[in-house]
This record gives sequence, C-alpha cells and structure tokens, in this order.
Amino acid sequence: MTSSLLPEGLRDRLPPQADAAAAILRAALDAIRAHGYERVAPPLAEYEESLVGRLKAGAARDLLRVADPLSQRTLALRPDITTQVGRIAATRLAHRPRPLRLSYGGPVVKLRATQLRPEREMTQIGAELIGRDTAPACAEIVALAVEALAAAGATGITVDLTLPNLVDTLAAGPLPLGPREAAQVRALLDAKDAGGLAAFGATAYLPLAEAAGPFAEAIARLRAFDATGALASRIAALEAIAARLEGIARVTLDPAERHGFEYQSWLGFSLFADGLTGEVGRGGSYAILHEEGREEPAVGFSIYPDPLLDTRADEQPPRRLFLPLGHDPAAANRLRAEGWITVAALDRDCAPAGCTHVLEGKEATRIG
Amino acid sequence: MTSSLLPEGLRDRLPPQADAAAAILRAALDAIRAHGYERVAPPLAEYEESLVGRLKAGAARDLLRVADPLSQRTLALRPDITTQVGRIAATRLAHRPRPLRLSYGGPVVKLRATQLRPEREMTQIGAELIGRDTAPACAEIVALAVEALAAAGATGITVDLTLPNLVDTLAAGPLPLGPREAAQVRALLDAKDAGGLAAFGATAYLPLAEAAGPFAEAIARLRAFDATGALASRIAALEAIAARLEGIARVTLDPAERHGFEYQSWLGFSLFADGLTGEVGRGGSYAILHEEGREEPAVGFSIYPDPLLDTRADEQPPRRLFLPLGHDPAAANRLRAEGWITVAALDRDCAPAGCTHVLEGKEATRIG
Repeated sequence: MTSSLLPEGLRDRLPPQADAAAAILRAALDAIRAHGYERVAPPLAEYEESLVGRLKAGAARDLLRVADPLSQRTLALRPDITTQVGRIAATRLAHRPRPLRLSYGGPVVKLRATQLRPEREMTQIGAELIGRDTAPACAEIVALAVEALAAAGATGITVDLTLPNLVDTLAAGPLPLGPREAAQVRALLDAKDAGGLAAFGATAYLPLAEAAGPFAEAIARLRAFDATGALASRIAALEAIAARLEGIARVTLDPAERHGFEYQSWLGFSLFADGLTGEVGRGGSYAILHEEGREEPAVGFSIYPDPLLDTRADEQPPRRLFLPLGHDPAAANRLRAEGWITVAALDRDCAPAGCTHVLEGKEATRIG
Repeated sequence: MTSSLLPEGLRDRLPPQADAAAAILRAALDAIRAHGYERVAPPLAEYEESLVGRLKAGAARDLLRVADPLSQRTLALRPDITTQVGRIAATRLAHRPRPLRLSYGGPVVKLRATQLRPEREMTQIGAELIGRDTAPACAEIVALAVEALAAAGATGITVDLTLPNLVDTLAAGPLPLGPREAAQVRALLDAKDAGGLAAFGATAYLPLAEAAGPFAEAIARLRAFDATGALASRIAALEAIAARLEGIARVTLDPAERHGFEYQSWLGFSLFADGLTGEVGRGGSYAILHEEGREEPAVGFSIYPDPLLDTRADEQPPRRLFLPLGHDPAAANRLRAEGWITVAALDRDCAPAGCTHVLEGKEATRIG
C-alpha cells in the first residue's frame, strides 16, 4: 500500500534502534557538555536566503524547500546546523565573552542522499569554539571530537589532519604563484597528480603530492619540505594537536588535502572509525562573518553518528521486569527508581514476553 | 539586518534554555521508558497524502508543505507524531505481540501558531499503548502522562477526564436520538447551552451540561444521571483511573466535553499544570486502522513541554571548573567523570568568567 511507504531517504527508526540512537545523541552531547560547551537549538527551517547566504556553494543546491504561506516566503530545511550556530554567534550571542563554547545536536535534512549515506534525514552533533583558532583551541576541538565519537560508541578512531589553505600560504610566501597558477596547483594537488605538477613547472610543490601518511612520517616530510620555515607555526600547531590525541586516536596527515574543506582556514580534519565506510565526522578552523564585516576566528567539528547504530557491539538488552496482575505498586516504583524497566500486566492475556524477570512479592526473580 | 531574522514562530533556543529543553525531553522520555515503552523515531517529513489520510480534518489544513524534487511529490512536515506512530503500529510493527508499548519525542512543525502557543516548531513527547483501551490500559497511560509531566518539571498537575462518545452511546441506548438529533445535542452540550437543550426537547440530556467538576462530585452526578446503568462500565473505569491518580494529580471530570476529542472513543483527557495557560498535553482512547480494514483499540497521550521552560524553578546553575594554563589533565578528567563541567584556559586572555571553581593542583577550589 503506497500510504505506508515513505519518501526515499526518509525512514522510521524502530525499537531497539530508536532507543540506541537517542542514547548515542545523549552520550556524545554529555561528553561535549562536560567541557563547558553550552547547547544551542536553532530551528529546523529558516528563510532559504538566510541559509544560502551562509552555506557553501554546493550545499545551497541541496536544500529541501518549504512553502510558508504565513511569511509568504520560501523556507528551507536545514542541511547543516553549523551555519546556524555561526549565525547565532554573530548575532544574538555577539555580546558574550570569547572564547564562546557552543554545542548542538539534532536532525538535518538534505535534498539528495549519497551512495555512501542513503538517508536524507540524519543526526548531526557538534561543538564550536568561537573567538580562537589557535593551536590550543584546535587541539581542544579535535580531542573533543574524538571523545564525543568514543562516547557515541565508535572504536578505532582515526583523525586525518590537513592544511586547507596551505597552497595559498606558500604561494603568497616562499613559493610564489599568481592566483591562476595557485588555482591550477591546488587542482593538481587535489588530484594528487605529480606528473601534472611537473608538467606545469610547479616542481617546488611536488613533495606535497606525496606527503600524506601516518603523522610522524608525514610531519617529518613536511618539515623537510619547509626549508624557509614559512610553515613553522603550523607544524608546531599540528604537533600540539597530535600530542593531544596520543592514546585516544590514530593520527594521519595529508597536508594538501582540500576536498570538502574549501571554507576552512589553516586546519581541517576528518574523522574515521572502525567498521564505518567513509568519514563519520569532520571539522576545522574557519571565520565567522559578523554583520559589520568583521571576521572572527573559530574552530569546530560535526559528527554524523547514525552509521554507528549498525556497528556498535550489541548492548546487553535491558533487564525487563514483568509486573503480574495484583502486583505491589510500591515495589515496582522502587525497582524503577533502581533502573529497572517494568512491563505491567493489564489483564490475564498479557504474557511476560520479552521480560527477563518477574516481580514476586517485593523482589525481582529471573524468569526460566 | 533581515538575514539574521527568523520566520515567525521559528526561533533559536539559546543557553541555558536549550540545555534545559534537552533535560526536559530526557527526563520525560526516561520516565516513559521505565514503564516498558520502546522508542520509535519516524521521519520529520512524509508524503503529504500519507499524513493527511491519517490526520484529523482540521490538522490537514495546517501542514507545511515541502517540494521534493527527488520523489517529484509533495511532502509535509509532521504536525504530530501520534499519527506516524499509528502508521508504524499498523504496518511494520503489526506482527509484534499486543499490548505494544511505544514512545516518541521530537520536534513537530505547524503551519500556523496560535495566540496561546506562538511557536510553530515545538517538542512533542508521548506514549501509545496499542492493542488495549480497557480501564487498566487507560489508567496506565493517564498515570504515565502525569509521571512524565512531573519528570519534566511540572507541578500542580490536573487531569480533566471526559467521555468523548458519551452522547452517541446514550443516543444508541437509553436516551434514543436519531443521527441528526444526536449531532444537535452534541453541539448544544459542547456549547454548554442548557437553555438550547431544553428548547430542543432534549431535557433528558440536560444534567450532562452541568455535570462537570471535581471528580468525586462529578462522578456522583454522572451515576445519578445513569439510571439505566448504561454507563456503569465507563463509570467504573473512570473510578479506576481516578484512583490511580490519587496523590499525584488533581482530577476533574467533564463527561460531555468533546472539543478536540473528535477522534477519541470512550476516554479523553487534558493535562494542566501550575503556571501554564491552557493545556500542556492530552490523550485518550482511539482506534488504529489497519490496512485490511480492521480497527485496533489503543490509548495514548502527548505532552508539549516547551512552556515548562518558563515555569521551572531556576535550577542551580551547574558548577563550572576553570582549568588554568598548565593544569593537570588527569585531574580534569577525573573531575569531569565525577560530573564537573570544566572550562579550559586556551591562553592568558582566558578569564574564569562564569566559573564557580578553579582547579588548583588536583582539587577544585571555590572562586572568590
């Protein structure tokens, strides 16, 4: 029956997955909250032009539009919460002291699914540290992303660090390039096209095409490449970040990787975890544009934890206590307060199906 | 600047309200979960025709529509989660044993705000008990609604019970009326128009216009009215429900009230709390329509807890621990695990603003 079919990419989450999804959201946000990040909750929809103005060019094409007879304008469902948090930081919370630590968690909706992620509605959780993009700020955010992911149940977490505006920095400094040449070099590096770089005469940039790898080796190669010391502060910052991640995540470095980091400044990072195809989150440093034209540094991350639902080790199903007809309600109250889930019989046809225990007198007794 | 304005009825929730809203959602859903209700999470949007087919006539006009280029059909944002849960119970969970206990919590979006509730996006939380609408089932749901509301921070809770199909029951039994006359009597009772009832010659129904009041008195009047005993089982069920609420809520009875209960069967109820204008939730018994045409009894409730944000006694702001530069990270970890919220200094400009304590050595010391 078509009446029971849902649109492509939108689906019901059933038991026990819906409870597990709620537990993941809760655990990740609790981890973030413990580091002083305060929650903000922007609306599910905004004026389309307001969202578009703050979104990446590609993302603007991906909006699901809502006709709003009340405002007689077009709204759009948010495909991303980060942009909304930036708006809040630049307007209603512009007066709050910096650094400002904000967190968020909730659904986002995209026009199109991808092969990797067939869902169009997904949970986005994240944190933004506003007013700083220094090494300590970035180290806090990257470590917090790992901690939030681990709290959500991810294991074997890898952080891939990158320097999104590396070519621009070098082109304006020790390895001069005009804007057009810089664009070409960026494209060739994005394609990891060493031959193309050589043919283009940008041999000075060649080492970057092969600099990626485990952090220790990759940072050594980057330092060797940086004969002039133009990257010294970035290298030191990357080392501070990697040191912070010791023991909690594997770290790799791909200094010239820019894909998806077009709007990040000096730092970008992708998050991976065991059992998941593709990245489970990302983040980096960026600038928040204030209405008077001022740019404010910031760093943040987002994770998309829904795929973790399929990889988390099956948790122990909760102990469920059957309450037979005529049970002692005070005993049931006490046991619920102790963390039991109770299922009350309503009539003689109610069986203790799915229950592990039954209330006998004042105590829970295992069934079977 | 218009770019920072949000559409009417859609707003940002800022600190500390966003954290409080999350805490309310969590507390209410935890209370519901403890009684064996399993979470379901339907999508934010569905095909318009699928939502409309299961919505009350009035609600269908109140949909915010979404153009979906992918399906080339019109979607609508859900104005209500109950209807989605009914769909799930009738389809993907049709095979699960009854009684089936389901819960839900999340945002709903309406086309129009009301004077009482200026928000168009609001949180809806609820539980549905599917497969029963008996007195024990209804008593469990009404008591659970009160418990969930109390967990959300409501005080002085009142439950107003009603018998939505009372006139139909009487008209088909001891006080015969044709369908047209019954409709007229319902309308006159809805208006509490005693004069109109008398003029219409429906004097037998007159006592119902004045039967409302505190439960003990109102149920006595209803029993006196029910000379034939046609309502005996309903009266007994109402008494079982009221007994279950003793000590946790005030109970009133307005047996002929039908407003907003057009789709409820024998029982409806509204929930009120101190400090809130208008109802904060409602529920009742109803029928779920299965695709083969079978109707299944069910009972459930929804609460809309957002207004509680403004009435909850200001909670103690959380203790926040400032971590100075060079602090002991292991001590900070331990204190977070004990429930502290920490705020780390990133540089010398970071002040312990908003913090109640500072980490000195391995211990938290109160500031000031």
